[in-house]
Amino acid sequence: MQTQKPAAPRGPKPNPNTRDNLIRAGMRMFHEAGYTASGIKDIVDEAGLPKGSFYNHFESKEAFGEQVIDFYFEKGLPELRALLGDGNVPPLKRLQTYFEERMQGYEAAGYAGGCMLGNLSLEVADQSTAMRSRLAEHFETWSGLLETCIVQAQRTGAMKNQLPASLLARFLLNSWEGALVRMKAEKSNRPLKEFVQAVFGSILV
Amino acid sequence: MQTQKPAAPRGPKPNPNTRDNLIRAGMRMFHEAGYTASGIKDIVDEAGLPKGSFYNHFESKEAFGEQVIDFYFEKGLPELRALLGDGNVPPLKRLQTYFEERMQGYEAAGYAGGCMLGNLSLEVADQSTAMRSRLAEHFETWSGLLETCIVQAQRTGAMKNQLPASLLARFLLNSWEGALVRMKAEKSNRPLKEFVQAVFGSILV
Repeated sequence: MQTQKPAAPRGPKPNPNTRDNLIRAGMRMFHEAGYTASGIKDIVDEAGLPKGSFYNHFESKEAFGEQVIDFYFEKGLPELRALLGDGNVPPLKRLQTYFEERMQGYEAAGYAGGCMLGNLSLEVADQSTAMRSRLAEHFETWSGLLETCIVQAQRTGAMKNQLPASLLARFLLNSWEGALVRMKAEKSNRPLKEFVQAVFGSILV
Repeated sequence: MQTQKPAAPRGPKPNPNTRDNLIRAGMRMFHEAGYTASGIKDIVDEAGLPKGSFYNHFESKEAFGEQVIDFYFEKGLPELRALLGDGNVPPLKRLQTYFEERMQGYEAAGYAGGCMLGNLSLEVADQSTAMRSRLAEHFETWSGLLETCIVQAQRTGAMKNQLPASLLARFLLNSWEGALVRMKAEKSNRPLKEFVQAVFGSILV
């Protein structure tokens, strides 16, 4: 077993609750107002913490942004896995239920916010390779979960479309992200409803 | 005939070239860095003009944003109309050529920037009803041009998909915007290539 040298203490010991509170505050702000519009001062204020606490936990706003992105995706991941991996429900039905439930969530939110991964992809991808990589990786994981359903639906014959499942999964997720772009521009659920209608009424079946 | 009262002169007469230069500078900056990250000072500096010139032409950054959005869409509109309305080319081929040419443009730009309408939809739609309305209106015009091709392709039998042409046109445009989200996250043309492959290899035909 490898012996790990404890890190030399420098300044006050970071409080893990503080770190968590900052990440949750940052997530709310990035989601509502965007990355650029949310200054570190705004984030610590939102978390009710002194400004110094930020740099006890994060070396830069960009490093913080990476962790906010990871936190946002990972908090939804167990539910996503459970829903899309539920063997008691036919695979195509699982996919449709997933998108319809997300639509209901966006309706309840008045079409504000949208998907933080999509928002940040357009806002910060050109400025930060580090954040961009986190976004690309999470999109890949997400597509992979859709792909599992598509493979099963193609095998059972429920899905007629025989394009490669991995391509179809990425196309589906990207189309959904695009429906969210139009949802925010229109402030209506029409793009999401039409996504469901096109995908489950024609494209996949 | 109605007699119009001329507006009372207030301060120096606005120079239309100045206005145009500000709009072009704003478009470059909003496209590269986003709306929030581009301050009025940055925009006048980019245009090589004094700060006061901005308020001779625009009453607020938001009003300026609306005009930048209109300018961006309208400058591409003649080419869009010409390409999608070219009766010498079969309608499905026109659509595919359009998306492939856009893809080549994004490749040449190294996948930076993307579509300013999509970027601003995610960045400012929640904050500005005025800008949001301009975005929604331009998306509608754009969808309408795609729809014309789809109607023709459905009539000639070149397109098997018989979903309503208007729905299909909006779905297509939204999916394209989503492919651009993923393009920026991945910094690759894969999402755009897969869009073309899925749409013209399966979904429409």
